[in-house]
Amino acid sequence: MNNIKLIIEYDGTNYHGWQYQTNANTIQGEMLKAIKKITGENVNLIGAGRTDAGVHAKGQVANFKCNVRIPEKRLPYALNSVLPDDIVVKSAEIVDEDFHARKSALSKEYRYYILNSEQPSALLRNYVYHFRYRLNLDHMKRGAELLVGTHDFSAFKAAGGSVTSSVRTIKRLELNTIDEIIELVVEADGFLYNMVRIITGTLLLVGTGRMVWSDISQIIKSKDRNRAGPTVPPQGLYLYKVFY
Amino acid sequence: MNNIKLIIEYDGTNYHGWQYQTNANTIQGEMLKAIKKITGENVNLIGAGRTDAGVHAKGQVANFKCNVRIPEKRLPYALNSVLPDDIVVKSAEIVDEDFHARKSALSKEYRYYILNSEQPSALLRNYVYHFRYRLNLDHMKRGAELLVGTHDFSAFKAAGGSVTSSVRTIKRLELNTIDEIIELVVEADGFLYNMVRIITGTLLLVGTGRMVWSDISQIIKSKDRNRAGPTVPPQGLYLYKVFY
Repeated sequence: MNNIKLIIEYDGTNYHGWQYQTNANTIQGEMLKAIKKITGENVNLIGAGRTDAGVHAKGQVANFKCNVRIPEKRLPYALNSVLPDDIVVKSAEIVDEDFHARKSALSKEYRYYILNSEQPSALLRNYVYHFRYRLNLDHMKRGAELLVGTHDFSAFKAAGGSVTSSVRTIKRLELNTIDEIIELVVEADGFLYNMVRIITGTLLLVGTGRMVWSDISQIIKSKDRNRAGPTVPPQGLYLYKVFY
Repeated sequence: MNNIKLIIEYDGTNYHGWQYQTNANTIQGEMLKAIKKITGENVNLIGAGRTDAGVHAKGQVANFKCNVRIPEKRLPYALNSVLPDDIVVKSAEIVDEDFHARKSALSKEYRYYILNSEQPSALLRNYVYHFRYRLNLDHMKRGAELLVGTHDFSAFKAAGGSVTSSVRTIKRLELNTIDEIIELVVEADGFLYNMVRIITGTLLLVGTGRMVWSDISQIIKSKDRNRAGPTVPPQGLYLYKVFY
């Protein structure tokens, strides 16, 4: 049996997220169909992170075990030849038998892109969140610093997640500006359901002055979802990289 | 009568180009519908450049004259509220009566984006031209230099253009790299039909070594379309800015 690790880029616009569903178009579903076509096998495809409908990936990682021997160099070409063009396998690699895309991950990096301009962008409409109001980036950065570290992130978790502990470690949380775009980069050992989108929504409240940056500490302590900001829309979010 | 100048961004993916057609979806057609809805008038909308099917614009300029007085600050909001979201009016301004989006233009800047990577990009599939083969950027830059200036660009013109003279002045032709993306920036006082896409196709031949950079001079002199490179696909092309 070969254990194969894939790095996958996808445009989540036209999918109901990563996770396979019987009656909906999903990334995992398309991947399983493609792998079946190329290898002839029905495999168990494990993704590093479940992305929601409309969320994108630059570097989703997935692995599967199969019997067929295909040269790893050729596998991306083979899979891409049968995949829809909004899903692309960037690389394939044979890895240790015990490699598990989700469980072996040390941390994951997500990015969220905000277009902070008066009018929206026609070209980026599915790839950024358009936010019209003036933002104080310095205040947002101060708020972001308070989120870094090991905390119980219950206040930044949507209902519906299945995990028991809400303690996570945010290793990095950076805010960069590229022209009119604000890029939020967050790396953590794990993420709760909607965590990045709620963090972003909270920092936007700080940016507009509707919340004080120093309130972030209290919100964390409260473990109360109602104290944090809104969940921003999916199209600005990217699963950017998985670290092993 | 107010003469109104608009700056328009659009995603050309789902349109048969700028130019109005009775039986096809076009940017100009959508704009005319939106202007009619907001002003109640059937106007003559003049675009600075005709873009082909699949070609995008970051800064198309158009003007129209109308009787209705709408505050210029509000006009983008009003038009965007009725336009499809792949067409966005970025700004509106009342200009001199004799301003003409095409005839008043001193020069136009187009950009062409090439993704030079082994595998294509799922996220950029409609926004760059994926070119897999290794490129010598230095040779491409030397070739590009030879195109700058005033020349008869007949060799870089597709059949179907309606103009008589093929003499144009390229003021700038730069090649920049941003990670795996090559950005070609070209500013000229005017462009022949498919000129940017044929220039790019020719420079790609130089980049792969199938043509020598110094051949560019001879190709210009030949005025022979068959000597230049292929027309690269539309999705990498952007009407970026119009100078007045």
